[in-house]
Amino acid sequence: MAKNLTRKILEAHLVAGSLVPGEEIGIHIDHTLLQDATGTMAMLEFEALGLERVKVDLAAQYVDHNLLQADFRNADDHKYLQTACARYGIHFSRPGNGISHQVHMERFGRPGLTMIGADSHTPGAAGVSMLAIGAGGLDVALAMAGRPYFFPCPKVLGVKVTGELPDWCSAKDVILEMLRRYDVKGCVGKVVEYYGPGMLSLSATDRETIGNMGTELGATSTIFPSDQRTRQYLEAQGRGDAWRELSADPGCDYDEHAELDLSRIEPLIACPSSPGNIKRVAEVAGIRADQVIVGSSVNSSFRDLMVTAKIVEGRHSHPDTAFHVNPGSRQVLENVAQAGGVMALLLAGARIHQSGCLGCIGMGQAPGTGQVSLRTFPRNFPGRSGTKDDQVYLCSPETAAASALKGVITDPRDLAEDMDYPRIEDPEMYIIDESSIIFPAPELAETEVVRGPNVMKLPEFDALPDTLEARVAIRVEDNISTDGIMPAGSKILPLRSNIAAISEYVFHLVDPEFVERIKELKSAVVIGGDNYGQGSSREHAALAPRYLGVRAKIVKNFARIHKANLCNFGILPLVFKDPGDYDLCEKGKKVVFPDVKKHLQSGAKEIPVEVDGKKILTILEVSDRQREHLIAGGTLNYVKQELGTK
Amino acid sequence: MAKNLTRKILEAHLVAGSLVPGEEIGIHIDHTLLQDATGTMAMLEFEALGLERVKVDLAAQYVDHNLLQADFRNADDHKYLQTACARYGIHFSRPGNGISHQVHMERFGRPGLTMIGADSHTPGAAGVSMLAIGAGGLDVALAMAGRPYFFPCPKVLGVKVTGELPDWCSAKDVILEMLRRYDVKGCVGKVVEYYGPGMLSLSATDRETIGNMGTELGATSTIFPSDQRTRQYLEAQGRGDAWRELSADPGCDYDEHAELDLSRIEPLIACPSSPGNIKRVAEVAGIRADQVIVGSSVNSSFRDLMVTAKIVEGRHSHPDTAFHVNPGSRQVLENVAQAGGVMALLLAGARIHQSGCLGCIGMGQAPGTGQVSLRTFPRNFPGRSGTKDDQVYLCSPETAAASALKGVITDPRDLAEDMDYPRIEDPEMYIIDESSIIFPAPELAETEVVRGPNVMKLPEFDALPDTLEARVAIRVEDNISTDGIMPAGSKILPLRSNIAAISEYVFHLVDPEFVERIKELKSAVVIGGDNYGQGSSREHAALAPRYLGVRAKIVKNFARIHKANLCNFGILPLVFKDPGDYDLCEKGKKVVFPDVKKHLQSGAKEIPVEVDGKKILTILEVSDRQREHLIAGGTLNYVKQELGTK
Repeated sequence: MAKNLTRKILEAHLVAGSLVPGEEIGIHIDHTLLQDATGTMAMLEFEALGLERVKVDLAAQYVDHNLLQADFRNADDHKYLQTACARYGIHFSRPGNGISHQVHMERFGRPGLTMIGADSHTPGAAGVSMLAIGAGGLDVALAMAGRPYFFPCPKVLGVKVTGELPDWCSAKDVILEMLRRYDVKGCVGKVVEYYGPGMLSLSATDRETIGNMGTELGATSTIFPSDQRTRQYLEAQGRGDAWRELSADPGCDYDEHAELDLSRIEPLIACPSSPGNIKRVAEVAGIRADQVIVGSSVNSSFRDLMVTAKIVEGRHSHPDTAFHVNPGSRQVLENVAQAGGVMALLLAGARIHQSGCLGCIGMGQAPGTGQVSLRTFPRNFPGRSGTKDDQVYLCSPETAAASALKGVITDPRDLAEDMDYPRIEDPEMYIIDESSIIFPAPELAETEVVRGPNVMKLPEFDALPDTLEARVAIRVEDNISTDGIMPAGSKILPLRSNIAAISEYVFHLVDPEFVERIKELKSAVVIGGDNYGQGSSREHAALAPRYLGVRAKIVKNFARIHKANLCNFGILPLVFKDPGDYDLCEKGKKVVFPDVKKHLQSGAKEIPVEVDGKKILTILEVSDRQREHLIAGGTLNYVKQELGTK
Repeated sequence: MAKNLTRKILEAHLVAGSLVPGEEIGIHIDHTLLQDATGTMAMLEFEALGLERVKVDLAAQYVDHNLLQADFRNADDHKYLQTACARYGIHFSRPGNGISHQVHMERFGRPGLTMIGADSHTPGAAGVSMLAIGAGGLDVALAMAGRPYFFPCPKVLGVKVTGELPDWCSAKDVILEMLRRYDVKGCVGKVVEYYGPGMLSLSATDRETIGNMGTELGATSTIFPSDQRTRQYLEAQGRGDAWRELSADPGCDYDEHAELDLSRIEPLIACPSSPGNIKRVAEVAGIRADQVIVGSSVNSSFRDLMVTAKIVEGRHSHPDTAFHVNPGSRQVLENVAQAGGVMALLLAGARIHQSGCLGCIGMGQAPGTGQVSLRTFPRNFPGRSGTKDDQVYLCSPETAAASALKGVITDPRDLAEDMDYPRIEDPEMYIIDESSIIFPAPELAETEVVRGPNVMKLPEFDALPDTLEARVAIRVEDNISTDGIMPAGSKILPLRSNIAAISEYVFHLVDPEFVERIKELKSAVVIGGDNYGQGSSREHAALAPRYLGVRAKIVKNFARIHKANLCNFGILPLVFKDPGDYDLCEKGKKVVFPDVKKHLQSGAKEIPVEVDGKKILTILEVSDRQREHLIAGGTLNYVKQELGTK
């Protein structure tokens, strides 16, 4: 049977389940990727597994998010990660060496391998034909321990690419065209597989842009064939031996299908405040551009910075426009410097920053009140820039450069009167600089892991008791989000490697006295309404309540990811069989789960509960795997038992 | 009579008083300098004067401090400053264009002129033989309005310089040697005037380093002769016409005298946590260096970055050392890039930042817990890095570069085994880039000043009434500092252009209910003990209480600068004639100052006060000038009356 490329890679890595869209599968993971914002918790979770070293072909830890260092916490996190990497055999990319996605592709990416990363833009590795998926920190920690990654088998959307991009258009416009068609949820549960004769006109870093920002389509991942362009890139990285040819079989099937004629692409822009709010640049041209930023997570490659440099060379950014450049990596910056791009950008008024994510995750570069910011970033969610009511547009480097020159949003094709389109050739051989990557040394066990006062070991959790006795610590309304459970923000985020400290803020916005109250209880139950746990996937919304003693949540209905996180951290995710029983469960009521362990072991779906003596029924709808994790007191405990570590 | 150079410049600018050390003099100011951290308030003060444009030969506003942009406030401040500059005829140096001291010297500095700047390191302009003095924001605002600058006539310390610096030593070691001799208060009330045959071995930017950090000696300012090296620098800046020869007369007198033989200098280092805590580098060699930063306020010139680049070229910074470079200006970075320095630094693992102050004023780059940081900065006060209990050392670029390579504090002379000392020649002609300086345009009045929601106009204050009736709002103990009156910190500092908002924190650490209480009162008195108002010179410690209704302070004894600030903002600075009367003045007591205006007008030194009906005497010890300012309700009101503006 002719197979698409996604299926080939999944088949080659399948260790559990079968390839039926929607059913849970487990795949072997070749590479893992961590960045520092999610990485400290994932590393603590890996440490909690008690292994002597990572058991994955290649684990990499990047420091690219928290580079501001307003106090000791960032530097302490960096030191913790660096020493933990040395201890457990993980590649460590030092602060300032670049953004995980760019650096991983440069130095480690290999066609046909699988990767999960605790960063939603991990699918950028599609640029060198890896099947790369964003995941939670614990998922990555487990993969580092050599465990499979479990997820619903995706559908495959085949996109046949024809034609070539017109002048002044580039890969960003391609993914913006996909967002115009599918919006931000149109590819949920799918891998987007591009193929066809148009592929050869897209370089590896062009494909990285499309794969990276495929996340904004809701896609599980993105894949491209590994072809001559892939080979060209890997050879220019001095890694030609990593290349192998990969493509879909001729005549293969796709679950869904689309066509994309590159020659019909025109400059597009995502308007405030969604990556799916797409217009033609020409439609919004003339709006004042107070700030223009090229670089960060997408569009920070050699080509992206050089096309910007060539457009602004000998010209100057507008006096009312702040013009920033965030290089994707040290290697990118060195190659751009070598090609004269740094000088051209500086003379055009650019503020060139150290390599890193920076404004892309609201680490500085916040626009002023009422200001319009044009960015080549992947996201423009409201307030993500650090400024409330911000007006952030997403566009290509070409559109960004043209707008920086004119001071207003500008269709780059308007520049054609003054200059030819500067088509950039990637170097035949990049300047290669691995000096800021610390490779694992043989003498792992001798390294001391340095933990600053804000980096605390993960707490240990009990297994499920035979019978659980608890009290209702809080009862909340419908639609409580994970932000409601575990708030974020600049005050609370720096505590993410310190569960004891961050736990002080659980339900802080909903009920400021919650934490004081739960500390009086031995075990606690949280009662919730409909759509409980919606929003961000943050693990801390399960981990921190568990730390405080929450052993079960009984709600009318769970959001999917939060429910999975509850299983991971040993909190029973129960649903009222009769939603009317919600009214019974007032704050302070005694709740008993008689023989709950036996019920879970038996595979029972109905779990009996006594609320102040009155019997009610609750539903536990989880996989057998999750059931075992709950009995063990969480996934970490279960895996530790299985691994036989202490 | 043979005159020293300081006296010549002062004589040429004298408009009030006579040149007797310690007596108040007024001098004409040629240039003014503002940066963004102090500049928003100074600009608001200038605006409050109601002038149509600045009345100084050259006013410059730099944006170099608040570059992090964690939220809308920084960008709003930048926009306010840019539009206010366009409105009032001020040169505006855009964010990322560089540090005020470096850029001013490059593009505007002229031998023999005077300058005041709202930045304590303003004396760096000594590099091109300006007599430049750090001052409060209101002093600068008044100079921008064409008013003289009043200050105590300084003594002159003549330092005869002989010899030449040995290899591996540079200007930073010269000023560290001065700090070894005089410590941080040894030059209070003095101008340090260097001269002699050794001068010609020090370039203009070398001299900038010595002048800039002369502030750490407590000096009023520093001056150098304008000679062939000055001419060389100005010509390389394309400004040879700005040069004129200046020197002390042969055989002139100095109030104090010292000698400095450059050939006897060796690498020195200021240890935690004072610029005056000097040791030989060799004495502390071997201490682990977790972080090394080259650049910022001093040592961010072409030479400084190039000597660093040449030392690390073809080598790599230690894997356990974070190596940062903060260029002094866009021009510096462009010239270093042109000379190959950017590539050498990048390949050696440096994180090159946009031009600006950055970690030098705790804007990022904070070291981790227990980490040692080596910096070429001028200051290492405890906690200034952003990390409590920090261990910051100050050293030359040579020592910094050697330590970055070795990972421990290293005497740079130890490198002599492996390499020759890279003696750097300044360019004969710099790449000159003024494109990020916005020069005043003719059509000033048409420009709208843009004020974000955090930039509020300065409140207007009443003149002194004939009789003042008030109540005691607070009575505090001895040694209350300006930090006690008006706290700083990352939460409160961003409010500095918003008096209404920052006023909510007056006495916040001393008495959290103070603000609530004073709002009930029409007029208020603050009662203080001994050494009231010690510490930082911040204007807000007078301005914000005045905004809340404080009209007089009666204390046992005032710190000097705070008392001057009280006069500036129309708060009577009174001292108990009988300190025992302190006990009378309890919180809530009614205080009447009968005929207070007449008493001030008459020049009376004793001011009668009635506390709950009981008569006591207080002492008002201020100059006639300050007396008039107090009657007017503050310096701004007085000057506005004089200028005839509304």
